[in-house]
Amino acid sequence: MKYDLINDDLINICKTAPISDLDELCEEIRVFLVEKVSKTGGHLASNLGIVELSVALMRVFDSPRDRIIYDVGHQSYVHKILTGRAAGFDTLRQYKGMSGFPKGRESIHDAYDTGHSSTSVSAAYGMAVARDISGDDYNVIAVIGDGSFTNGTVFEALNNIGDNQTNVITILNDNGMSISRNVGALSKYLNVVRSSQKYDQAKVSVKSALGNVPLLGGPLSRGLRSSKQKIKYSVIGEEGHLIEDLGIKYFGPVDGYDIKQMSEIFKAASEYNGPTLIHVLTTKGKGYEWSEKYPRKFHGIGPFDTQTGQASGNGGLSYSHVFGETLTTLAAKDKKIIAIAAAMGTATGLIPFYEAHTDRYFDVGIAEEHAVVFAAGLAKSGYKPVVAIYSTFLQRSIDYLIEDIALQGLHVVFAVDRAGLVGADGETHHGVFDLSYFSMIPGMTVLAPADGNQLAEMLEFAMGMDGPVAIRYPRGSCAAKHLRLKRFRGSNSVISEGKDVTILAVGAMLDECIAAAEKLRANGIDAGVTNVAVVKPIDSTWSELDTRLVVTVEDNVLRGGFGEGFAAENVNASYKILNIGIPDRFIEHGDIASLRKECGIDADSICTRVMAFLK
Amino acid sequence: MKYDLINDDLINICKTAPISDLDELCEEIRVFLVEKVSKTGGHLASNLGIVELSVALMRVFDSPRDRIIYDVGHQSYVHKILTGRAAGFDTLRQYKGMSGFPKGRESIHDAYDTGHSSTSVSAAYGMAVARDISGDDYNVIAVIGDGSFTNGTVFEALNNIGDNQTNVITILNDNGMSISRNVGALSKYLNVVRSSQKYDQAKVSVKSALGNVPLLGGPLSRGLRSSKQKIKYSVIGEEGHLIEDLGIKYFGPVDGYDIKQMSEIFKAASEYNGPTLIHVLTTKGKGYEWSEKYPRKFHGIGPFDTQTGQASGNGGLSYSHVFGETLTTLAAKDKKIIAIAAAMGTATGLIPFYEAHTDRYFDVGIAEEHAVVFAAGLAKSGYKPVVAIYSTFLQRSIDYLIEDIALQGLHVVFAVDRAGLVGADGETHHGVFDLSYFSMIPGMTVLAPADGNQLAEMLEFAMGMDGPVAIRYPRGSCAAKHLRLKRFRGSNSVISEGKDVTILAVGAMLDECIAAAEKLRANGIDAGVTNVAVVKPIDSTWSELDTRLVVTVEDNVLRGGFGEGFAAENVNASYKILNIGIPDRFIEHGDIASLRKECGIDADSICTRVMAFLK
Repeated sequence: MKYDLINDDLINICKTAPISDLDELCEEIRVFLVEKVSKTGGHLASNLGIVELSVALMRVFDSPRDRIIYDVGHQSYVHKILTGRAAGFDTLRQYKGMSGFPKGRESIHDAYDTGHSSTSVSAAYGMAVARDISGDDYNVIAVIGDGSFTNGTVFEALNNIGDNQTNVITILNDNGMSISRNVGALSKYLNVVRSSQKYDQAKVSVKSALGNVPLLGGPLSRGLRSSKQKIKYSVIGEEGHLIEDLGIKYFGPVDGYDIKQMSEIFKAASEYNGPTLIHVLTTKGKGYEWSEKYPRKFHGIGPFDTQTGQASGNGGLSYSHVFGETLTTLAAKDKKIIAIAAAMGTATGLIPFYEAHTDRYFDVGIAEEHAVVFAAGLAKSGYKPVVAIYSTFLQRSIDYLIEDIALQGLHVVFAVDRAGLVGADGETHHGVFDLSYFSMIPGMTVLAPADGNQLAEMLEFAMGMDGPVAIRYPRGSCAAKHLRLKRFRGSNSVISEGKDVTILAVGAMLDECIAAAEKLRANGIDAGVTNVAVVKPIDSTWSELDTRLVVTVEDNVLRGGFGEGFAAENVNASYKILNIGIPDRFIEHGDIASLRKECGIDADSICTRVMAFLK
Repeated sequence: MKYDLINDDLINICKTAPISDLDELCEEIRVFLVEKVSKTGGHLASNLGIVELSVALMRVFDSPRDRIIYDVGHQSYVHKILTGRAAGFDTLRQYKGMSGFPKGRESIHDAYDTGHSSTSVSAAYGMAVARDISGDDYNVIAVIGDGSFTNGTVFEALNNIGDNQTNVITILNDNGMSISRNVGALSKYLNVVRSSQKYDQAKVSVKSALGNVPLLGGPLSRGLRSSKQKIKYSVIGEEGHLIEDLGIKYFGPVDGYDIKQMSEIFKAASEYNGPTLIHVLTTKGKGYEWSEKYPRKFHGIGPFDTQTGQASGNGGLSYSHVFGETLTTLAAKDKKIIAIAAAMGTATGLIPFYEAHTDRYFDVGIAEEHAVVFAAGLAKSGYKPVVAIYSTFLQRSIDYLIEDIALQGLHVVFAVDRAGLVGADGETHHGVFDLSYFSMIPGMTVLAPADGNQLAEMLEFAMGMDGPVAIRYPRGSCAAKHLRLKRFRGSNSVISEGKDVTILAVGAMLDECIAAAEKLRANGIDAGVTNVAVVKPIDSTWSELDTRLVVTVEDNVLRGGFGEGFAAENVNASYKILNIGIPDRFIEHGDIASLRKECGIDADSICTRVMAFLK
């Protein structure tokens, strides 16, 4: 290996080394990434795709003075390596280890924390406006994938930037994928640009075009740049008119593996007086056989064998899988069922549905807002849409859940995947707000299964209901079937009675609660457990519980969650109440067991807290 | 008057009358609208602008078989008149009277309930997909203003529609305004199209172009339309390429006061096989001297004198006014303060700020999502952004409040206007969820002033804090200054002590609570009132209150609101707890007094409920 990724000053190397050396650096980074991620798991394909792009950014721009914002941020691994964090990859995404996303607290080179898509251009605009008001002159760069580009927030930002002619550099990292293959008219449009015959000419023409531009030869005073003389840099002007109609200078398409070309264009963009968009073509998974072949699988992956590309562990049957299989079966009988995904069809388990009922499967792209209103339109027309979105991403749709779904009383079923603590993705991805945001909405029914079997029963039950229904379930493998759970018919199951303590266990917290009750009994406390499958409406019979203490347990924030609702309804009941849930702070990444312990919602903590309360 | 707007079958007249008669109908509708709205108040300018457009839609399309969706919906008055609801205008926006927005429960001709902007295209896509799956062939039409068009959700919908080539007719009602004058690059782009010299030719060329198209002469079989032969209808093709790049056929611009031309184009669009966008040019406030002159003032207005255009009543000093004046003063001293509005600069009181600190004022358009991330970018760069958005519209930003603001601990102040019940705008506009959605977010400080004076003190206090702060205050005039309120220094004020009952009055509910306490004392109950200015964090000293019953009162939904949080924290305290707030259902429009009574949060109801509880 030519470079020591952990100890070398890679920023300086990016800035000063000849391009041929940088190509070697990129190869070594790829080998490093494959090896490290194969052990820890993580986002691989998107990072392999933009090694050269990240290096070229470091070469041209002066981070942290220049602000580089990675949209979504799972593609910031190379940036982390270049900015002195290669050693962190041994603990990548592990409890108390390095985050898989940009974090200002990790490095001054992470200009803005991301996690949810399509915020980079808005944030860059804010930084650029701040710069201009301050009379400063650093560059602000948003690096955003073509998948993220389909979300409306980006359009809102470009609409402002183009209007105000603010110097923001948007780098469109176009690999033709979001997580699944990309959808939408914009994607088709970009494909036309990609496949344009002019692409081959671009390499040549950009060189000759730039050769004539004095800005690139040496430094240019701000005064000259501020003049009205806006030099035309566009390599292939007419291809970018969708962007240029918004007043943003389009450069591209550019080869994402040609560091020299990218460096020249980046420099040109930084000298251009006005907003620019650079269209860079990359390949997801680039340079590693298995990830190039299966970019979707290698988007986010657990540990795997580098030789075979095979995942090491087997997670077992997941909730997502059960959801997808069940919905596919139900839809075979009920032709009114329609499935809607937001760029996460595979991850939410909907591939079987897509294969069996292609005409009733809709992936709307990273457009959670539109997904919900689209569902409302379908429901208004007599269909039964099922919207499958992660809990954390559905936060984008809350207004539409209220105004479009609940206000019209529409029968739409929300399959709220990755609810509760999600583990390695961490604080931006935990689904710990959904019980709160769904519960505040009038007319919502909120359900939470304790195992895969109950999820299947619940989904069938929900399809037969009226009005809006949310079913929230966790990431990962289903618990074994709880034999003591009643078949789900819209109510909760008493697992065991407890004269001293009754634990109300929300959804998949059931296992921890059963274990906690056993520990309490071992300590001489008569503890029982009830499975809370129906989170809203709150079961009115609970006001009559014959017990000294009711303990609510949920993997949702306490504020606005099940426990608070229960406490408020039963505040004057004869029993005492203890609410256990996610505390009022953000929870970092790590394995679920460690995180539950940190939050005090694992069996041991529940037992300890109950015993302390009883004293 | 030639027409009896209340009793005539206006749909039939639209369909069959000669155009010259329809022009007369439109004039009579205008007179009717000005007269009726001058008495009830309501949205006037936008409705005057699209009288002919609404008539042309009725002429060509077959509602309710064809679905017509009015985006936002405040411009649906003409549609209401045409569909048999003219008599309702005597009770427009009044308690138990006709709504000012489309409501399916009012008429089968209201295909989809709207209220918040930019949902029509997504909903139309849902209905069109339902139609196609069912093998039906009705038309789906979204009527959307150029202001609403700047919101990203529309882009997400068009991205899907263009991709799938679904037959959706989008009518862009371009009056160059949202509520304030429109902003953004798209707006500039549309202006270029508007002012194109080709506009004058359009009237001629559309006629000659369409004259050659057989589709308009007679009915065309579905088979022929489904063929690949997509006839070019575009009047001015090259002007619409921003839309056409997304795969959507562009028609326009079309004169919004030429019913004949509009009818021909609408018919052509309905015959076209694929998605279309018709760009119609209108003038906000058209045909009434005062509203043409002051379209912003006549967007939403109270009762006024039809001769002078002067508002009849005087609402007194509003919270919005106090907010705007205070922030303007603070910003004169603190150059880091930046004000952000989302198309509501006037309504949120920011005009003085704009006039005094133009370079630090940003109206981002109807883009609440982007507004919040933009603020995050500014705060990351050392500025102090203040984001002024209505409570109900800020529901669109919840994900960004969590992920961009709170997670990074950024000092951004949210001026949450129109919190609580808003009155005449009704169920889509009540700001009754903000205490819940802000309270669930870790690290948020949530404040609520009881009067204008306290709002001013609070805003100054908030600017000096760290981390995110929300200040929520109601629509309309401030209560007189409560002399007993302590100067706001981050804590709550005890107004009076109560041995029997302590009422915790959130923000502007203080007046009702003071009146309730007086009534209780008149009934021999020793009741006191505390002003809850700090909603989050919840004051820990309240666990020690020396009282028999604590009553929380708020104009927010109970679920997740202040009262539940208080109850959960103090569930095992020595006193009993009664939570009073907005019940778990949607609340219609009407005057505030009637709505508070309906919700049981007025002084009388509070008194009655407390006495019932004590028995």
